[in-house]
Amino acid sequence: MAGVIKFGNKPEILASSAVGGDTEAKGNLGKYFDMTDPTDRFGKKTFEQAESEMQRLALNFALKKSGLTPDDLDAVFAGDLMNQCTGSSYGLAEFGVPFFGLYGACSTAAEGLMLAAMTVNCGYFERAASVSSSHNSAAERQFRFPLGYGCQRPPTSQWTATASGAFILGLCSGETGVVLSEALPGKIVDKGITDQSNMGAAMAPAAASTIHRYFSESGMHPDDFDLILTGDLGQEGHSICRELLLSQGLRMGENFSDCGILLYDSEVQDLHCGGSGCGCSASVTAGYVMKKFAEGKIKNILLIGTGALMSPSSVLQGLAVSGIAHLVRFSKI
Amino acid sequence: MAGVIKFGNKPEILASSAVGGDTEAKGNLGKYFDMTDPTDRFGKKTFEQAESEMQRLALNFALKKSGLTPDDLDAVFAGDLMNQCTGSSYGLAEFGVPFFGLYGACSTAAEGLMLAAMTVNCGYFERAASVSSSHNSAAERQFRFPLGYGCQRPPTSQWTATASGAFILGLCSGETGVVLSEALPGKIVDKGITDQSNMGAAMAPAAASTIHRYFSESGMHPDDFDLILTGDLGQEGHSICRELLLSQGLRMGENFSDCGILLYDSEVQDLHCGGSGCGCSASVTAGYVMKKFAEGKIKNILLIGTGALMSPSSVLQGLAVSGIAHLVRFSKI
Repeated sequence: MAGVIKFGNKPEILASSAVGGDTEAKGNLGKYFDMTDPTDRFGKKTFEQAESEMQRLALNFALKKSGLTPDDLDAVFAGDLMNQCTGSSYGLAEFGVPFFGLYGACSTAAEGLMLAAMTVNCGYFERAASVSSSHNSAAERQFRFPLGYGCQRPPTSQWTATASGAFILGLCSGETGVVLSEALPGKIVDKGITDQSNMGAAMAPAAASTIHRYFSESGMHPDDFDLILTGDLGQEGHSICRELLLSQGLRMGENFSDCGILLYDSEVQDLHCGGSGCGCSASVTAGYVMKKFAEGKIKNILLIGTGALMSPSSVLQGLAVSGIAHLVRFSKI
Repeated sequence: MAGVIKFGNKPEILASSAVGGDTEAKGNLGKYFDMTDPTDRFGKKTFEQAESEMQRLALNFALKKSGLTPDDLDAVFAGDLMNQCTGSSYGLAEFGVPFFGLYGACSTAAEGLMLAAMTVNCGYFERAASVSSSHNSAAERQFRFPLGYGCQRPPTSQWTATASGAFILGLCSGETGVVLSEALPGKIVDKGITDQSNMGAAMAPAAASTIHRYFSESGMHPDDFDLILTGDLGQEGHSICRELLLSQGLRMGENFSDCGILLYDSEVQDLHCGGSGCGCSASVTAGYVMKKFAEGKIKNILLIGTGALMSPSSVLQGLAVSGIAHLVRFSKI
């Protein structure tokens, strides 16, 4: 079975952008968003259409930053949490760029980055984008309860981020100097978790599996990285993941964090275990992480995008929630 | 913008398999399935779990034919029509193979074949699988009406196939001699169709766009192929596609057909415009087409996988249904 994929031709993040809602603006990373909307509506009538609009805006911001037009893109890899991934298809239709629809739940950003890097690295595409999103109100009413019902959320629950992140990749021209240097696609891991209010627990074993596989195969050590980010396990899932890794002999240090933990201000915002959703790791990476690279604060990070593979129907039918975790490594060259 | 992708290293279809339900067994192509179940249940309690089981069975049949084990696979690209693509995630979890979740509606088989070929062709993976499925009963109750309601179907409607198709790709070893030689990823095309009982009309412009682009760029002519298969426009959509192409100066011949038209027996089975669903083009290609290659009856075909990008919510919110069409070319070497 294939191991860690190394990208010899240095697919570079030419530009990235993050768009978010009001809760995201008020969180720890509010200032790293290119745009936030205090209404969460982005000028649209429905939350679902607002999610599509976030993807459209995010890709537009990234294009603008890179000085490119849609015609300069050879492909876009995109996905979201909505049924039939309509956040992406409606949001990105107008660009007229060859479109690969993905579904990786909250791991979609990492999945899209990996595929964009793979296809750019070996020359199928000169430039490819990866875009993903989630919208709290669209996700809540689809996955859980009608919004007006005001259901109390259990302590292990995570808050689906209202956010989108877009990345444009191309062969390295020194634009940002941040390249995708490695990737490791994840396997589905099912540990029998049936509590749909504890997605962190369902995804933690998959994250631990991919992280453990990476360090076993790559010869790297956790200390070699400025940041090792899961996205998005939240506090509960992240602490389970840390324990699982420790039990396998891998002690993760202070540089081990999670996009869902970073996104919100747990002192002020009562969002329980932190953020989740395809837009969480996408926007944290596209906004915060890329800014830290630009400032020279970090040079080498791992993103482990984690997804919970379930639907409301599968949970009602009593099936367990499995998880998946895709790893990508960003390096400053 | 990138054009037709050529696979110089000849990613080969090492094996393929098709699994279907009762309606499929009684259709024109019944004998090309590796297995059909007259109950449509595949031993499972729910239709959704039956769909997952079809994916599991299809990949198992393909593995058996190729003499491979799951450990020999480096990746699987998979998707289906169910919310959050649970047909694939539950069906393929036990294989323990790195998993890329896709959503391309009925174009998923072509999208997966394209990505598997791209990743095998340039050596990221030694072998990769593409698996997709749909289940009539799971899709009907998710997209349209409860099954027991017995709603009358409009004449333009298509019948979601209860089927799954699996392909295993690897670098050419002469196993079957059938290779993926070219691919052209599709763009989203929105012509404002809002009738969710006429998906063929919604997808036809996307199919015409990709086919026209292919013949403009490749220097090939429709007569160069034994078969040019859309999948799945059905009778209505296919005739619209033929007319659209003619209006653009491209006259398609007798070799231009559609997986949704081929699958069922329109004389006996009252399924209106024919088949659709991720399992339709997947099983027609993995079963019938691959058998015709093996018999030496065909040597060169195009599959244009077509998908309607919508959800029940997006239709209720009044949004139009856009389409996408991904093209792959199979050649006997």
